[in-house]
Amino acid sequence: MRDLNPVFIPGPTNMPDRLRAAMNIQTIDHRSPDFAESLQPMLEDLKKVFKTQHGQVFIFPGSGTGGWEASITNTLSPGDKVLVACYGMFSHRWIDMCQRHGLDVEVIECEWGTGAPADLFAQRLATDAQHSIKAVLVTHNETATGVLSDIAAVRLAMDKSAHPAMLYVDCVSSLGSMDFQMDAWGVDLAVSGSQKGFMLATGLAIVAASPKALAALEGARCTRCYFDFRDMGNTNKNGAYPYTPPIQLINGLKASLEMLFKEGLDNVFDRHFRLAEGVRKAVAAWGLRLCAQTPELYSHSVSAIYVPEGFNSNELTDHAYHKYGVSFGVGLGEMAGKAFRIGHLGALTDVLVLSGIATIEMAMKDLDYPIELGVGVAAAQEYLRSTSTAKA
Amino acid sequence: MRDLNPVFIPGPTNMPDRLRAAMNIQTIDHRSPDFAESLQPMLEDLKKVFKTQHGQVFIFPGSGTGGWEASITNTLSPGDKVLVACYGMFSHRWIDMCQRHGLDVEVIECEWGTGAPADLFAQRLATDAQHSIKAVLVTHNETATGVLSDIAAVRLAMDKSAHPAMLYVDCVSSLGSMDFQMDAWGVDLAVSGSQKGFMLATGLAIVAASPKALAALEGARCTRCYFDFRDMGNTNKNGAYPYTPPIQLINGLKASLEMLFKEGLDNVFDRHFRLAEGVRKAVAAWGLRLCAQTPELYSHSVSAIYVPEGFNSNELTDHAYHKYGVSFGVGLGEMAGKAFRIGHLGALTDVLVLSGIATIEMAMKDLDYPIELGVGVAAAQEYLRSTSTAKA
Amino acid sequence: MRDLNPVFIPGPTNMPDRLRAAMNIQTIDHRSPDFAESLQPMLEDLKKVFKTQHGQVFIFPGSGTGGWEASITNTLSPGDKVLVACYGMFSHRWIDMCQRHGLDVEVIECEWGTGAPADLFAQRLATDAQHSIKAVLVTHNETATGVLSDIAAVRLAMDKSAHPAMLYVDCVSSLGSMDFQMDAWGVDLAVSGSQKGFMLATGLAIVAASPKALAALEGARCTRCYFDFRDMGNTNKNGAYPYTPPIQLINGLKASLEMLFKEGLDNVFDRHFRLAEGVRKAVAAWGLRLCAQTPELYSHSVSAIYVPEGFNSNELTDHAYHKYGVSFGVGLGEMAGKAFRIGHLGALTDVLVLSGIATIEMAMKDLDYPIELGVGVAAAQEYLRSTSTAKA
Amino acid sequence: MRDLNPVFIPGPTNMPDRLRAAMNIQTIDHRSPDFAESLQPMLEDLKKVFKTQHGQVFIFPGSGTGGWEASITNTLSPGDKVLVACYGMFSHRWIDMCQRHGLDVEVIECEWGTGAPADLFAQRLATDAQHSIKAVLVTHNETATGVLSDIAAVRLAMDKSAHPAMLYVDCVSSLGSMDFQMDAWGVDLAVSGSQKGFMLATGLAIVAASPKALAALEGARCTRCYFDFRDMGNTNKNGAYPYTPPIQLINGLKASLEMLFKEGLDNVFDRHFRLAEGVRKAVAAWGLRLCAQTPELYSHSVSAIYVPEGFNSNELTDHAYHKYGVSFGVGLGEMAGKAFRIGHLGALTDVLVLSGIATIEMAMKDLDYPIELGVGVAAAQEYLRSTSTAKA
Repeated sequence: MRDLNPVFIPGPTNMPDRLRAAMNIQTIDHRSPDFAESLQPMLEDLKKVFKTQHGQVFIFPGSGTGGWEASITNTLSPGDKVLVACYGMFSHRWIDMCQRHGLDVEVIECEWGTGAPADLFAQRLATDAQHSIKAVLVTHNETATGVLSDIAAVRLAMDKSAHPAMLYVDCVSSLGSMDFQMDAWGVDLAVSGSQKGFMLATGLAIVAASPKALAALEGARCTRCYFDFRDMGNTNKNGAYPYTPPIQLINGLKASLEMLFKEGLDNVFDRHFRLAEGVRKAVAAWGLRLCAQTPELYSHSVSAIYVPEGFNSNELTDHAYHKYGVSFGVGLGEMAGKAFRIGHLGALTDVLVLSGIATIEMAMKDLDYPIELGVGVAAAQEYLRSTSTAKA
Repeated sequence: MRDLNPVFIPGPTNMPDRLRAAMNIQTIDHRSPDFAESLQPMLEDLKKVFKTQHGQVFIFPGSGTGGWEASITNTLSPGDKVLVACYGMFSHRWIDMCQRHGLDVEVIECEWGTGAPADLFAQRLATDAQHSIKAVLVTHNETATGVLSDIAAVRLAMDKSAHPAMLYVDCVSSLGSMDFQMDAWGVDLAVSGSQKGFMLATGLAIVAASPKALAALEGARCTRCYFDFRDMGNTNKNGAYPYTPPIQLINGLKASLEMLFKEGLDNVFDRHFRLAEGVRKAVAAWGLRLCAQTPELYSHSVSAIYVPEGFNSNELTDHAYHKYGVSFGVGLGEMAGKAFRIGHLGALTDVLVLSGIATIEMAMKDLDYPIELGVGVAAAQEYLRSTSTAKA
Repeated sequence: MRDLNPVFIPGPTNMPDRLRAAMNIQTIDHRSPDFAESLQPMLEDLKKVFKTQHGQVFIFPGSGTGGWEASITNTLSPGDKVLVACYGMFSHRWIDMCQRHGLDVEVIECEWGTGAPADLFAQRLATDAQHSIKAVLVTHNETATGVLSDIAAVRLAMDKSAHPAMLYVDCVSSLGSMDFQMDAWGVDLAVSGSQKGFMLATGLAIVAASPKALAALEGARCTRCYFDFRDMGNTNKNGAYPYTPPIQLINGLKASLEMLFKEGLDNVFDRHFRLAEGVRKAVAAWGLRLCAQTPELYSHSVSAIYVPEGFNSNELTDHAYHKYGVSFGVGLGEMAGKAFRIGHLGALTDVLVLSGIATIEMAMKDLDYPIELGVGVAAAQEYLRSTSTAKA
Repeated sequence: MRDLNPVFIPGPTNMPDRLRAAMNIQTIDHRSPDFAESLQPMLEDLKKVFKTQHGQVFIFPGSGTGGWEASITNTLSPGDKVLVACYGMFSHRWIDMCQRHGLDVEVIECEWGTGAPADLFAQRLATDAQHSIKAVLVTHNETATGVLSDIAAVRLAMDKSAHPAMLYVDCVSSLGSMDFQMDAWGVDLAVSGSQKGFMLATGLAIVAASPKALAALEGARCTRCYFDFRDMGNTNKNGAYPYTPPIQLINGLKASLEMLFKEGLDNVFDRHFRLAEGVRKAVAAWGLRLCAQTPELYSHSVSAIYVPEGFNSNELTDHAYHKYGVSFGVGLGEMAGKAFRIGHLGALTDVLVLSGIATIEMAMKDLDYPIELGVGVAAAQEYLRSTSTAKA
C-alpha cells in the first residue's frame, strides 16, 4: 500500500496520470516523419519555459548531470578558468566535474544556506582585468539547502565590470516550478532535467544555450562526443537524433509542456509558492529553522529544515520511510544528520502537501522531538485555505 | 492536478497501481484455455474472502445492484414474503427492488444510525408459524450511515425460532475490508462488488450462494436470464461464461486476491480498523457526532458524520470538491444536508487518510464551522502513530 | 510473447493504446460535476453512431446480453407475442431470453447462412390482423455465421402491412463497424456493447430506444430493475447513474467516440469492408466457402468459413491457438466443427489482418488441409494493396 | 490505427505489455532501501546475460552510444592506439568517437557485408611488437548490414600473437537476442542498451567490463565524469547512483531479465534464429540478396536486403510507412538507397514477422519490383511452421 503515498523528495516528483500515459506509448520509429515533425515544435515550446527567444534547446538522453557535462565540454577548453560559488551539494558537483575536465576552478566558499554571492562575484570579476575568467557557474535552486539564488543580481554584478564571462546556471530543480528568465537574466547555459518541474521520469537532460554559448562551440576544446551540441543540433534540424532517442520520455515531455501551458506558467509558479509557504508555516509552528538564511533565499520547490540540537535528521527520514512509507529528502553533505528536506515541487496539491506535513510531524513526535502534533498542519492549513484562489 | 488527490468516497476506492496494471491487459480470447483454466481457481480463492467452504461464487458483469437482482431472482418467487429492516439508503434499494420483482416485502422501519435489529427479527419470526417469510434481508455495512451490523446476531435470532428463512446479506462495502464469515454466520446469499474492498474499477457483481440458496433455484419463479445462477454456474464449470466476460476486470480480481492474501485478510481488517478509528478520533476532536449510534455499530469502511445544526453538509462536500479537488461522500437520503461521509476503505494508508481529514477540516473552517484547524488531524495523528505496527 | 499477437475473434477486439489509456484512469467521484457534465454530451454523441435523432441512448454496466434483457423487459409484457427469425447462434439466445421472460415467441426457422427473411416477415405480419405480434426481433450481424442482414428490407416488409410491431435489432457486432441507420430503418430498439466496434473492454451494454419504444415503457409489465430504462434515464438527466457507474469504461467510450469521429464513420466502415474483402479473397483462393450464402449477406466484421469435408474446425482453431498463439473464432452451434471464424472488426489494419490469414493458412497446412501456403495471403495482399486509399 | 502495427526497425523493438507495465511505475525514492536492495541483484543477473562471472556491469542513463563513450574514456588515454575494423555504419561511429577523444585510430577497411576480419587483426597484431595497440574494437552485430561477427575468432587471433590489447565489443543489437559469451570470448568491454534484446524503451546504456578493463581505470586519462565507472561502481555498491537513476527503466530491466530467464536464454536465441531464418527464406523467394555475404555472417536480429538494380530502397521504406503504416529500417551509410532492413529482434512472434514480410512484399509490388505476391510469405510460412517447437 505504501506505493500509494506521494513522495516528498525534491525530485523525481510525483507524476500525473496523464504524463504516465504519455510515457507509456508503444515503440514508434524514431526515423518516422511523425516523430521528426514533432521534435522541432517541442524544442520551440521548451524555449518558452526557459524564457529565451534566441537560445537553442538540446535534449540529451541522460540525467541532469549529463546536461552539466554538455554545457561545460561544449563551450570551454582545458585550462579555462571558471568561477564557482560553493554554497551547497550541487555546487560541489559542478566543481568536481569542472576539475575532471581540466578546468581551472576558482571557488568562492560561501556558508551553506546562503545563495549566489553577487557582490563577491562583482569584486572578483573587477580584479580580472585580463578576463581570464571564462565562466561564472551558479546554481539557481540549491536542492541541498533549499536556497533560491538571485540570478539577475549575478548578471548585474557581471555587467557592472563589463566582464565577458559566460553565465552558467543549474536550474534542474527550479525550471518549470519557479520563474526562470534566461534572456532577461543573461544566462548563457541553463541546465535542467525531466524529473522535476516537468513531472516526468528521470532520463532527459534539458539544456538551453545562448547565442554567445553557441558561438563558443567553435573554440571549445574539452573532449566531448555523446553530449556534443553540434551533433545534436545538426540532427535535430531534420527531426532526428545522433543516436536512438528516448521516444517515450520525449512524448512525455510534449504532454508535460501542454500541462504546464494549460495551467499557465505563472499559475504553476504561484502554486509552488503557496505549497512552499504552507510548508514554511508548518516549520515555523514547529519552532524549527530553515537552512535558507533569509526569506529572499527561500526555495519554492524544496525546504531544508534543521532538526533541533541533539537529534539526527537521518533517523527521522529513515523512521518516516519505514513506519509511514513516505520518502523525504535526507540531509546532504554538510547537512547530513542536521537537516531533512521536504520536496514540494512538480505534481503536488494543497491536499497532498498536508499529508507530508502530517507525516513528518508524527515521525518527529515518535522520536520525541519537542513538537506538538497538529500544529504544523494547522499552520499550513490556515495559510493554504486562506490563500487558495480555487473557485469554491 | 486535482486528479492526484485521493478520493474519500465510500467506493469506488483509490486503486493501487498494481491492480490498474492488471486491469490494463490487452484483449485475450475468453474462450482460450488460459482464461478458462484461471477462472475456477479464482472462484475458489474468492470463497476464502467470503469465508465459505460449501458456498458457490458467481461473478456477473455489472455493478453491485446487479448482484442483488441475481440473489433475489434466482432464489425467490413472486408473492414470496421477505423481511427487510430499513435503516439506511441501501436497505431502501433492496426494498424497491424486491417490490419490483413482485415480492411481498415486510419492512421493519428502524432509525437511521441503528443496525440490523436482531431482536425485532426474532420477535417477528417467532410469530410466523407458517413460515411464510422466505427470506430476511440485511445490509452488513450501511454506507449511508456508516453502520456495521451484527450478522451473527441476526442468524442467532433466526435460529432461535428455528425459522427456515434464508439470510441475504449486502456486503458490498464490507467484504474485503471488514471481517465477513459467510458460513459461520449462516449467510445464504452474500452480495458484493469489485469497487470496494477489492480496490478495482466498478463492473463486477460478486455473489456467493450457500447450498441452501442453490437448492432454492429449483422452485424460484422470479424471471431472470442475464443474472441466472444456473447459466453462470454451468458455463463457469468449463471455464466459460454465458456471454462475453469482462476479462480485464477478472484479471484485476485475480491480482486483487493476491494482494489481499499477501497482506493477510486479518491485517487488511486491522488496517481498516485503524484508519477508521483515526477518522473517529478526528470527529470527536471536532466535537461532531457520527450517524452510527453506538461504537458497536461503527463501520470501518465509511464514517457518516453529522454537521452541526444550521450547516448544510452538501455545501461542505461541494466546497471541498471545488476548492480542494477532493471528493467526500455526500449525505444520502435522510442524511442529505445533515451528514457528510468519509470513505476509508480499499487502498488507503495512514498518510492519505490524514490528507482527507486535513482537507475536510479546512473546508469546515472555510464555511465557519465552529472547529479549530488541526485538532482533528492531531487526534488522528496521535492515534495512528501510537497504534502503528509498522516496523520503524 | 504470444500476448503480442492480435486476436481474430469476432470481439472483444484488439484495443488501441489510446483507448487502453483512457480506460486506465484512477478513480474519480462519479457524483462529481466533472463526471456529470460529461455524461449527456457522450450520450448525444452516441446517437450519431446509432444514426438516430429522436432516440435515447442508455449505457448499462454489463455485457451485450444485458442490453437485450433491457430492451425486452422495458417494452414488453409477459404473454406478448414476438416474432423472431432464427438464423444463427445469437438469434437462439434472443429466443431463449424472451421465453424466460414469459413472452410468446414465434420462430421463423431459417437456414444458417441466410439473413433476416423480410419476405417471410411480410407474409406472417400480413396474416396478423389483430396485431397480436408486438415485436419483430432480428440480428443485424449474426456473428456465428458472418451474415449481415438487410434491416431496411425488414422495415419495408413491416410497413407494407402497416403492422405496428416494434423492430428490435441486435447490432452488437455491427455498430461502429458497419453502417447502421436507426432512424432511417425504423429501428425501435438497438442493442450494442463496448467490446466490438467501440474497441473497448467488455462491460458496457449500449442500447438505443426510439420514441415509440420509450412510449411502450408505460405498459410494459416484464419485471425489471437493474436494467430499467426509467431509472437510468431519470438519473442520467442529472449526470448520474442509478448505481455506481463504471467510470473507466465510460471514459474509454468517450475516447472511442473521438477516435471514430476523427477517422470518420464512413472511413471506419470502408476500412472494415476492405479488411473483410481481403479475408474473403483469401477464402476464395483457398477454395473454401463462407457460411454466408450470398455476397449481399457478407458481414464485414466477421467471416465464418466452412472447412472441407472430413476436417474438424475446432481442431483447427485449437491448433492455431496452441502452436501459433493466435485466437480465431470457433464454430458455434450448428457450425461447431464445421466452420471457423475470422473476426476482422474493431482496431485492425491491413497489416494485422494479413498476419491472421497467414497464421490460419499455416495451421491448415499443418493439419493437411488441401491448400497451398501463401495463396490466401497473396490474394488478400493483391486486394488490399490495390484498394488502399492511404497516401503513399 | 497504424500504431497497432508492429515495427520492423532493428530497435527499439516492440515492447511486451508486461514490460510496459513495469516501466510505468509511479515515482519511488531512489534513495530508499527498496530501490537500493534491488540494484545489486539485478546487476548480478545481468552478468548471466553477458555470460561473465568476473566482469562488472554498469548501467548508465543514456543511449547505447553513451556506453561506448564510457568504455573508451574509462580505459584509454589520449594518444593510445586502437585498432578498428570498419565494416558498417556503427564501426564508423566508434571510429569518430575514438578520434574525438584523442585516440590514435588505425582502421582496417573491410567491405560492407563482411564481418570482423580475424585474420587481418592477427596479421596486424603480429607486427605490433611494441604492443602500441591498446585495444581492438569490433561490432558483434552490425545493424547496418545485418552481419554477425565471430568474436571468438577475433579473440583467437589476438591470443595467437599473445598481444595484450583489450577487446571492445559493441553488442548493442545482439545481447539478449543472440548468444554472447563475454568470458569465453575474452571480451574486455561489452556495450549494450535497453531498447533491443531487453525489449524496453531507449534510455539505458548497459556496459560490462572485465577485470582487466577495470584494472585499466587506474591509468586511463581520457576525461570523463558522467560516464565514470568508478563513481558508478562506488555508489552502486551501496545501492545508489552518482546522480538520479531512471528508476522506471531500471524496474523495466528487472522485469525484462525475468522474462528472458523464464523463456530461457537458449530459447530466446532459438526464437530469434527461427524468425531470422523465416525472413531469409522470404528474401530468397523474392530473388533478393542479403548484404551479409555468407551464411556464417547472417545476423539473427536484423536482415539488410539489397533491392534490385534500378530501385531505391528509401522509396520502398517510405512507401511502406506512408501506405501501410509500418516502419522498416532504411539503408544506412553506403547502403542508403541500396538496401532496406527488417528488424526481427526483441518481442516478436512467428505471426508478427509474417505481417512484416507480407507488408514489404506489397510495398515492393506497388513499386513494380519484379516479385510475385505471396511467395516470400509462403517461404517463411513453410519454414516457420515446420520448425516450430510449440506444442500444438
